[in-house]
Amino acid sequence: MGKVNLRDKLALFDELWSPKIVGQVGEMHLKLVKVKGEFEWHSHANEDELFYVVQGRMTLHFRDRDVILEPGEFITVPKGVEHKPEAEEETHLLVIEPVGTVNTGDNEGSVRTVEPEWI
Amino acid sequence: MGKVNLRDKLALFDELWSPKIVGQVGEMHLKLVKVKGEFEWHSHANEDELFYVVQGRMTLHFRDRDVILEPGEFITVPKGVEHKPEAEEETHLLVIEPVGTVNTGDNEGSVRTVEPEWI
Repeated sequence: MGKVNLRDKLALFDELWSPKIVGQVGEMHLKLVKVKGEFEWHSHANEDELFYVVQGRMTLHFRDRDVILEPGEFITVPKGVEHKPEAEEETHLLVIEPVGTVNTGDNEGSVRTVEPEWI
Repeated sequence: MGKVNLRDKLALFDELWSPKIVGQVGEMHLKLVKVKGEFEWHSHANEDELFYVVQGRMTLHFRDRDVILEPGEFITVPKGVEHKPEAEEETHLLVIEPVGTVNTGDNEGSVRTVEPEWI
């Protein structure tokens, strides 16, 4: 039961679109992920997913609108809702979602699917 | 399903030790709370509780040690573990804990127990 410093953890990796687990509360994992460019459209049938911008700027595309997130802002994407993250510059996110959530959601097995590891 | 800006939400209240709900992901609430001074010793029999420092500096006392949290740092207090938050200067926290968690834990009914409201 130690404390976690987000900046220290972010310094441990450079990979893009590869979530790293940094904490847990109840059945939720906290993951850091560095993103740049476009991800793929996907949804999570059973999991809500919260995106918090630590640094940078992210556009979260939904089928009917876009939401731009700046540092200090978050949004919860409810289960079942299609979304596509995109970031023009490199952006650092804290993601909160249930243990076991697959990054590509219902596209599990996509070339962009990765298994998150603890750092 | 809108985005939440932590700074905007923090500007909406001044009360100390009175958590305000600003978001939800799965069965977890995200709460903002402003603290200064000492809280009371308590634990939560069934809920993990995560403390993230947005601004300021908090000491989390445990029976066997103290942990100091600075901005950008978090810690998860597992269910059942006694703790006492303390902050010398006014400090702003983001707390993540299950829906229905009582701020004073097993001391429910204490003079410091408050019902959190959405803002």
